[in-house]
Amino acid sequence: MNSPLDEFELIRRHFSFATAQEDVPLGVGDDAALLRLPAGEWLVACTDTLVEGRHFPVASRAYDIAWKSLAVNLSDLAAMAATPRWFLLALTLPEADPDWLSDFSAGLRALAAQSAVQLVGGDTTRGPLSITITALGSLPQGQALTRRGAQVGDDIYVSGYPGEAALALRDLQAGGAGAGLRARLDRPVPRIGLGLALRGRAHAAIDISDGLAQDLGHILHASGVGACLDVQALPWRQPAAPDLQAILAGGDDYELCFTLPAGQAPPDHEVHRIGRIEAEPGLRLAAGGQPVSLDLRGYQHF
Amino acid sequence: MNSPLDEFELIRRHFSFATAQEDVPLGVGDDAALLRLPAGEWLVACTDTLVEGRHFPVASRAYDIAWKSLAVNLSDLAAMAATPRWFLLALTLPEADPDWLSDFSAGLRALAAQSAVQLVGGDTTRGPLSITITALGSLPQGQALTRRGAQVGDDIYVSGYPGEAALALRDLQAGGAGAGLRARLDRPVPRIGLGLALRGRAHAAIDISDGLAQDLGHILHASGVGACLDVQALPWRQPAAPDLQAILAGGDDYELCFTLPAGQAPPDHEVHRIGRIEAEPGLRLAAGGQPVSLDLRGYQHF
Repeated sequence: MNSPLDEFELIRRHFSFATAQEDVPLGVGDDAALLRLPAGEWLVACTDTLVEGRHFPVASRAYDIAWKSLAVNLSDLAAMAATPRWFLLALTLPEADPDWLSDFSAGLRALAAQSAVQLVGGDTTRGPLSITITALGSLPQGQALTRRGAQVGDDIYVSGYPGEAALALRDLQAGGAGAGLRARLDRPVPRIGLGLALRGRAHAAIDISDGLAQDLGHILHASGVGACLDVQALPWRQPAAPDLQAILAGGDDYELCFTLPAGQAPPDHEVHRIGRIEAEPGLRLAAGGQPVSLDLRGYQHF
Repeated sequence: MNSPLDEFELIRRHFSFATAQEDVPLGVGDDAALLRLPAGEWLVACTDTLVEGRHFPVASRAYDIAWKSLAVNLSDLAAMAATPRWFLLALTLPEADPDWLSDFSAGLRALAAQSAVQLVGGDTTRGPLSITITALGSLPQGQALTRRGAQVGDDIYVSGYPGEAALALRDLQAGGAGAGLRARLDRPVPRIGLGLALRGRAHAAIDISDGLAQDLGHILHASGVGACLDVQALPWRQPAAPDLQAILAGGDDYELCFTLPAGQAPPDHEVHRIGRIEAEPGLRLAAGGQPVSLDLRGYQHF
């Protein structure tokens, strides 16, 4: 009843990450995992799917696919100010290629170790390549950062250099991106430490997956406010002139956008103040105090 | 920046299930959900993917696809004796068809309501049809049913009538299954109540997704024991003679197989005693005390 490489063997060989820590009474290998949440903390849960050719280039390295699949989920936890704890992996594969699985497993282990999260369960199925990860974290009750808390007068910040993933994708489509820029597309770094540093300080936060303007728009909508961004304050470190389309509407950055009470010093991370929350709904752009008009094309999954 | 039916609108329209219950401080609509676990309980988590053409027939009703996607996950929670609480939905669709989504949503709502679980998060992506659900439940710490606890002398039980899903699939492939049998394939009923009734009583449990013999084999392997099944005791209610291949190796039943201390009365559910745990490793079949040999073809995902 067993083929040489059946589902169970596949799981056992590549995804038997060591857990056995105190917060995982039972990990991979039973019908479900048993997990112990710290007393008094809330569970934080999110899930994201990556489909080949849509969320990562066809023929990407398995290592990078795994990394990005986990990173985008940890980024969501970071945006809530959660401590990442566990994750489950649902992996759909056209075939069970041991080399591919080994590389995938290495990428997953690398980011999991770096982020102190444990693989506690999953499923492998045959089909078109697609990865769904569910990330689970926790935080002291009532300390989550949501999209709802932005207040008029708040300073708006963004971490890192949004737009670089979009630049990398454009270069790739034009024939190849340099390794440095390419890493911004393939191996986004979830801003977990920044998220934790924002606990009790930020009024609102979101991670940027669909473009800064669109994701900031979710904060504005949820908080019932508007904003004005100073285009001259948008972070940029490329040799060419700033590409506002990439910065404001490029997807796949996984930086954090957040608001702080006016004048409050930001945490000691690489963040940039880019604008201010206003009472009037909508998102406006300005340069030197003058309105700027820009027709942004946003990132759409559908 | 918004198309008439973008991702966010899609989610909002079809998957804004009411939550707002005390155990969901924040549900669908932020970067992650916030969930409140009962004090002193452990979290129970599992994930399963269904791929079109592999886990459900092409052109299945969206209602049934949704039902089954949730049911197979709740079945895993049931096998741990967990109380189901929440789930996250990762839905990959070739196109955003409002009718299909409406039917899918109805199926999901129906089983969710019946099982008292709440949709608290998810992701929609474009790609080949596939559904990954992550189910979250809880149980008093230390009260989980695992695959590891079977003891020599235990009675082995199975719920319901395993094999009927395989019969339905066979009929379907031969031109059509009757509605009654077809429901066994399309709308499995997770045995949540039975799982709860087994808390503190059963030594080991598993849900049957890959066939009774193979899944019981996981209990035997994990517990370091063997078993003998009485083929004459295997439950069967079809007009034709019992189909041992279907009963023992048919997949997709989502019944529970569990062991009870010898002679202990089973809970008041539709369950059947089918054999006994023995010290000698391996799974044996017998009829009237005589060994039976049977070449089973198991269900393989890969």
